[in-house]
Order: sequence, then structure tokens, then C-alpha cells
Amino acid sequence: MANLTAAICVIGDEILSGRTKDKNIGWLADQLTELGIQLTEARIIADVKEIIIRHITDLSDSNDYVFTSGGIGPTHDDITTESVAQAFGVSVERNREALQRLEQHYKGTDIVLNEVRKKMADIPNGATLIDNPVSAAPGFCLKNVYVMAGVPSIMQSMFDGIAPSLKKGTIPTRLTVQCQTGEGNVAHILEQISYKYERVSVGSYPWFKPGQFGTAVVLTGLEKNTVVKAASELCVLVRQSGYEAEDAV
Amino acid sequence: MANLTAAICVIGDEILSGRTKDKNIGWLADQLTELGIQLTEARIIADVKEIIIRHITDLSDSNDYVFTSGGIGPTHDDITTESVAQAFGVSVERNREALQRLEQHYKGTDIVLNEVRKKMADIPNGATLIDNPVSAAPGFCLKNVYVMAGVPSIMQSMFDGIAPSLKKGTIPTRLTVQCQTGEGNVAHILEQISYKYERVSVGSYPWFKPGQFGTAVVLTGLEKNTVVKAASELCVLVRQSGYEAEDAV
Repeated sequence: MANLTAAICVIGDEILSGRTKDKNIGWLADQLTELGIQLTEARIIADVKEIIIRHITDLSDSNDYVFTSGGIGPTHDDITTESVAQAFGVSVERNREALQRLEQHYKGTDIVLNEVRKKMADIPNGATLIDNPVSAAPGFCLKNVYVMAGVPSIMQSMFDGIAPSLKKGTIPTRLTVQCQTGEGNVAHILEQISYKYERVSVGSYPWFKPGQFGTAVVLTGLEKNTVVKAASELCVLVRQSGYEAEDAV
Repeated sequence: MANLTAAICVIGDEILSGRTKDKNIGWLADQLTELGIQLTEARIIADVKEIIIRHITDLSDSNDYVFTSGGIGPTHDDITTESVAQAFGVSVERNREALQRLEQHYKGTDIVLNEVRKKMADIPNGATLIDNPVSAAPGFCLKNVYVMAGVPSIMQSMFDGIAPSLKKGTIPTRLTVQCQTGEGNVAHILEQISYKYERVSVGSYPWFKPGQFGTAVVLTGLEKNTVVKAASELCVLVRQSGYEAEDAV
């Protein structure tokens, strides 16, 4: 499928240690699919500058978009901003607009906008800000890399803000055919359909419940008519083999 | 921290499309941490042979262990086995022991061990089998790569089987200090501790509850005494700054 592509890069030692479970990849995967942007890969990496630079460079070169989460807070272990800047050879500077947003956010609270918190207004040169409706401190977009917070609620609010500005790809048609038999009994049919309809991806996902098992066959492609035709033909072939198959949904 | 290292590679279009949410990375991260094996990175990649080969080669070269999940079933889209074999330049052959396990598993059921299901007994030359207590079809280990099923219950049962045979690293000491203030107020202390105790990683994780907020500071290192000392010093400094900090746990 030729389409717009994206990669996700989750940055954080706490995910790799297991202390925190990532919730951003699955959520973003859904959003991207709905926008017709194909997620080609996701990586979870450590809070180490050289590592961040290497992966950001790699993913930025090979995808239309890169979305990162994590590492843009005010503490010493938040090194995503400077690493992404360095990956693109630009400097980091205190951003006036970002600083104003922080000032506005903390005004009237008992939280002091001290030098440490002001660090969250340091943005790579040439980047555009990403709004943060939750806690003000903005993310940013530099070239094709969108740098967002790690906290899921903040990351989601940031992505909701940038989604309308992203290019949209063709939203793939995805149909599921539920077969009431193990995948070993229909594998030859799946292969046949996959071979005949080159532009339809045919995925096979066995499932088990107490006393029951079956196979969810997922057909995905950019041409709706072709996917519908392939799914319909699959149903016919499965039934001809003597197994039940529900109509594609 | 010099320690044993591992990478996780989740293989499956269904994760990238968002249809299925990955549960394997978080679970494996916990297990590896408990074994003293440092997870350096995790990747989620597509069911495409060239992509699998490239990532497996890359991760195998740079880690003591690589753990994969997904793509070892009987259908045409299960291409992990042949891809890993090709990454190491070996051929795939029908494995007698694996076939016997499948025969044993299906004996007395109404499931036929047809040619398609026998494909699950195809194993790279020179690989050792990984037991599958759930559904018999084995995973395998080739060089430093452990190839497991994608279904979480099966993957977990496979990993439980191989865990005792893995080399154990030093289990890091991890202490958490809960500070009853925003991270912007303690960031300078965290940085100071991090600078003084080079071998202790100091992570800062702000949290929010209605009407409350605070910062969980996580100190991690291979030398228990040093981590304890760093955590204790951190508590003192936070309290001296006028904020509450719970003793490290």
C-alpha cells in the first residue's frame, strides 16, 4: 500500500523498566489509521541523548511523520528537546510565546514559574509550538517530527490539536470475516485470496474462548471495492469447505 | 550501568493498525527487570520479511538477548520463522520433535494435523525448541534470538519456560521517593543528586490527582548501598527546601 507513513518513538527509561506501561502507541495507532496514515513502526527507547538522536534521524528519514512522546518536562532527565534539536543541527532557545503560555498558566496559582519550570519554554530554533490544553507547556514540531508529552492525557490533547493540520492519506478499508474454525483449516483459502488480491492484506487471528475457537480474518486495502470482493469470495470459499463464516463486517 | 541487555521485537501488522493492543512489551519488561536483564529498547514492526530481517539483525548484534513475539502460526502471514532463519543464513526444515509434539497435541481431538498445521513444526536449522504448554506449537531460539508466539498467554508460558535458562544480571535496586510538590520545585535537587551519584539513574515522574499533585522520584542503580544513600540524601534535601518527602520505598 502506497500511503502516507508515520513512526512512533516513545522515549523513557520508565517504560523499558516496566515501571510504567505504555498507553500511547495503541492510542496513536488508532488515530493514525483513522487519518489514513500508515504506522510503519513504533520504538520505545531510553533517555540517552545519542540514542534519541540516532533513532529520530533514522525514523525521520524513512517516514512522512514521526511522533514522539516523553522527555519534555523540566527535570534533568528530560532531554528529548535538546536531542531532537541536535538531530537536526539547530540550537535550543527560550521561546517567547511558550514562556507567555507558562506565565498565563501559573498566574494566580501558588506555583512559582522558577528557572527550572522556564526550561519548558526552551524550544528548538525553527520549530512550531504544539498546544498543550492540559498543562500549558507546549510540545513542538521540527521538520516532520512532532514532539509531545509522555503523560497520556496530555499527549492525547496535543495530538487532537495537531491532527487537523496533518495531511490525510486514503483511509484503508478493513473488513473482518469471522470463521468458526481453526486457522489451520482455512489457511489455504487465506493464502489463495492473498495471492489473488495482491493489494489486499489478509491477516489471520485465531481466538479461543472456553469451549469455542475460531479465526478472525482481517482484510485491509486502500481500494474499498477490491477489499469487499475479496472478503465476499473468502466467505464463499470457507463455506464451500464446510465451515461457518459470518458475512464480513 | 553495565549489565546484561535485551531488546524486544513485536512483529505484527495488527498492532501497528491499532486493531490489537500490545500487552507483551510491558509484561516482558517486568520479567527482564526481575532477572537483572536491562531492556534497552522495544520495537513493533510489520509482517514484511525484509523488515523483520533488518531489525532482527540489528537488535541481535547490539544486545545479549532478543525476544520476539508474533508471526509463528500456520498461515501465509506468519513469516517470522523464515525471516529469522534468513537473518542468520540458515534454512528452515521440518523438525521431528516439534512434529511429534503437534501429533501428541491433536491426538484424540477432531482437529486434523494437516499440511498447513504441520508448517508450525518448521524450525530453522540449528535452533533449539521453546516449549509451548498452551497449544504445543513450539517457539525456538536461534543464536541469541528467542522467537515466541504473539498471543499473550502463550508468549508468557513460553517465556516462563526459558527464563530459568537465561543468564541473570545484577538486579538493579529501585527506590521511589514520593515528593509532595511539583517537579519544578525539586528539579534542582534531582539534578544535584544525579550529578553526585553518577551510577544512580534519577527519574522524575509527576502525578496528578483531583486536588493533589506530586512527583515520584525513582532512583535506580546496580549498587544497592549507593542507591539507598542517594535516596536518603534526596529526602533530606527536599525536606530542607520546605517540601514533604516520604521515606524511600
